[in-house]
Amino acid sequence: MIDSFVEENFLEGNPLEEHGGNIYKASKMLNKELNEIFDFSANINPLGIPQKLKEIMISNIQNMVYYPDPKYYKLLSQLSDYLEVPWINIIPGNGSSEIIYLFFKVLKPRDVLITAPSFSEYEKAALNEDVFVRYFKLEEEQGFKLNTRKLMDEISCGVDCVVLCNPNNPTSKLVEKEDMAEIIAHAYRHKTTVLIDEAFIELTEGSKDNSMTDYINTYKNLFIIRAATKIFAVPGLRLGYGIGNKDLIANMKSKQQPWSLNTLAACAGSFLICADDYLKRTSEWLVEEKAWLYKNLVYFFADSSNRADKLKVFNPDTNFILIKLLCTELDSCVLKERLAKRGVLIRDASNFKYLDNRFFRVAVKDRRSNERLINILTEELD
Amino acid sequence: MIDSFVEENFLEGNPLEEHGGNIYKASKMLNKELNEIFDFSANINPLGIPQKLKEIMISNIQNMVYYPDPKYYKLLSQLSDYLEVPWINIIPGNGSSEIIYLFFKVLKPRDVLITAPSFSEYEKAALNEDVFVRYFKLEEEQGFKLNTRKLMDEISCGVDCVVLCNPNNPTSKLVEKEDMAEIIAHAYRHKTTVLIDEAFIELTEGSKDNSMTDYINTYKNLFIIRAATKIFAVPGLRLGYGIGNKDLIANMKSKQQPWSLNTLAACAGSFLICADDYLKRTSEWLVEEKAWLYKNLVYFFADSSNRADKLKVFNPDTNFILIKLLCTELDSCVLKERLAKRGVLIRDASNFKYLDNRFFRVAVKDRRSNERLINILTEELD
Repeated sequence: MIDSFVEENFLEGNPLEEHGGNIYKASKMLNKELNEIFDFSANINPLGIPQKLKEIMISNIQNMVYYPDPKYYKLLSQLSDYLEVPWINIIPGNGSSEIIYLFFKVLKPRDVLITAPSFSEYEKAALNEDVFVRYFKLEEEQGFKLNTRKLMDEISCGVDCVVLCNPNNPTSKLVEKEDMAEIIAHAYRHKTTVLIDEAFIELTEGSKDNSMTDYINTYKNLFIIRAATKIFAVPGLRLGYGIGNKDLIANMKSKQQPWSLNTLAACAGSFLICADDYLKRTSEWLVEEKAWLYKNLVYFFADSSNRADKLKVFNPDTNFILIKLLCTELDSCVLKERLAKRGVLIRDASNFKYLDNRFFRVAVKDRRSNERLINILTEELD
Repeated sequence: MIDSFVEENFLEGNPLEEHGGNIYKASKMLNKELNEIFDFSANINPLGIPQKLKEIMISNIQNMVYYPDPKYYKLLSQLSDYLEVPWINIIPGNGSSEIIYLFFKVLKPRDVLITAPSFSEYEKAALNEDVFVRYFKLEEEQGFKLNTRKLMDEISCGVDCVVLCNPNNPTSKLVEKEDMAEIIAHAYRHKTTVLIDEAFIELTEGSKDNSMTDYINTYKNLFIIRAATKIFAVPGLRLGYGIGNKDLIANMKSKQQPWSLNTLAACAGSFLICADDYLKRTSEWLVEEKAWLYKNLVYFFADSSNRADKLKVFNPDTNFILIKLLCTELDSCVLKERLAKRGVLIRDASNFKYLDNRFFRVAVKDRRSNERLINILTEELD
């Protein structure tokens, strides 16, 4: 009974799934195990869950018999080490989602300016609190690179809050640290709070050094979101953290639901404080495979000296690549469906604001998977 | 560094911890392992985490590399089996806390009548949504048993929502099914929504049969909260569920944060559908130990034929017992501190509405622990 019910609901599905391909649906459809699917729709570190983190989780399953420490002191202390920020400036959350929602609930800005295209939860969380939402358009002609000057002009005109995802999802563009510092300082002078979602910051060249966390006690208008999700390949663990001025953090904690982090999320800090080796291996993989996948996508599909352009490939700064279909006979939804039938999931990016049904996003994965992507795209686009 | 920081914060502590003794603090203070503490402050099934559930969790740790299915279809289907309610009437949550908060957020009642003393989160969640909160006092003279007739009179006077915890925490009193049905029907006629928190329902004599879930599609004004937390001894897993009319459930789902349940909570349904043996063993333990602990508490401390009354012990319907100190030289906070120093945690119940610093609450545990409680109380109260 259960299986047929689940199958029916999966297969029915939702053509506009908000957050990328559903690997469970694909696994049901194709009658394959989850790990047999090539999932390029989720931007997860392909090095997988660190062995030591797995061990910590397994050894803590028995501790689920206790309520988590309601203040999460041990985790806070470990996050303080990992993030190099005083614990009083940190709030842990049930994934970054909880932090995003809590931020808007507590800050209650009158209006918010969100760069777009970007992750849809900022808008959803803002609307949830009846915040007036405006967008700052990232221009395709500029490769979706943020126009710092123009953003600062908008801030000068007055806005309570600005949201930046850095590096940005789905465009994979990173704002340089000096530019970001300039934006924050400018916003500070205009009493504008800046929310920066750094969910992918450890997945850029330079890793944690690109983070703005070291400005947290210089600018009270700065709020940063980080998470274990992408970098440590644990979306199912639900561990995110907000970093901000201590008054906002205390306020958010007072409004947080009790025990919103599960026992395993609460104990993951024991891994974070000794994650250096994993981070180093991640950097090595990233530098190599990001370049390889980009180069090959360009070579096979976007280099007109070679053949007719089929794709426009936007140069990535992190572990995923935004791509535009140039062949008019195909849209991203059709391409997604075709690839899914063959066990390869991509993110149809048409439901991102200012993008359309020619855009899709792929994660950078291990070499074998990346080769599979190139091959299957070659077959489908030929 | 971390250890001293954590220790400092634990030891400093908070004299009015909202939800009972902090086992982490005690473990630090006494330099003991968590499992060496006799924790009577948390009302958790002492049979512990079911072996099969542990195995399911361990085998699913590797699946944390995937985002949980955003619709939790498989879990819903399994909950439907376990609760004997159509899946469309169920919303899973990050513990029952998330369900309580979401309920008030979506229902937005003008006012709410909460029986008291009771679990403090109903009030907190209601105030969070600016709901006007009133209390229906449970009378000590009636052994804190709900006066059904009087409650119905209050409902007749008009109120948007009534909250009942059944069996009630901390009084351990169960409202009989027929009485509860009468309340719901009466409330239905007066357009009053009834929220019943059945977190402990499987820990009553009669177990699931005492639940009001079978009325869910008869009365649209009924909303029930259940959870895996207490009965399956997994407060650290964070798995609760709301059961209500399908429109309210759909509305709540649309306002729920994405992926609020972690991967292990989402896979726990595979245990629920084969929990019969564990539930049977729980019932056997409960019938025996609840009677034993109550009888011995009365015999040693409340039976004036035996010696001077030291305690007033309220007859429990579930796995915890509310107790009132009759000896004036001791209050519940002092008693709690004294016992904590000896590795035994009790719940100082003085911060429950309408209770004072003579009340405390103890869980019913295994025989060895229950004996330890009687012995240490004998020493401290003599």
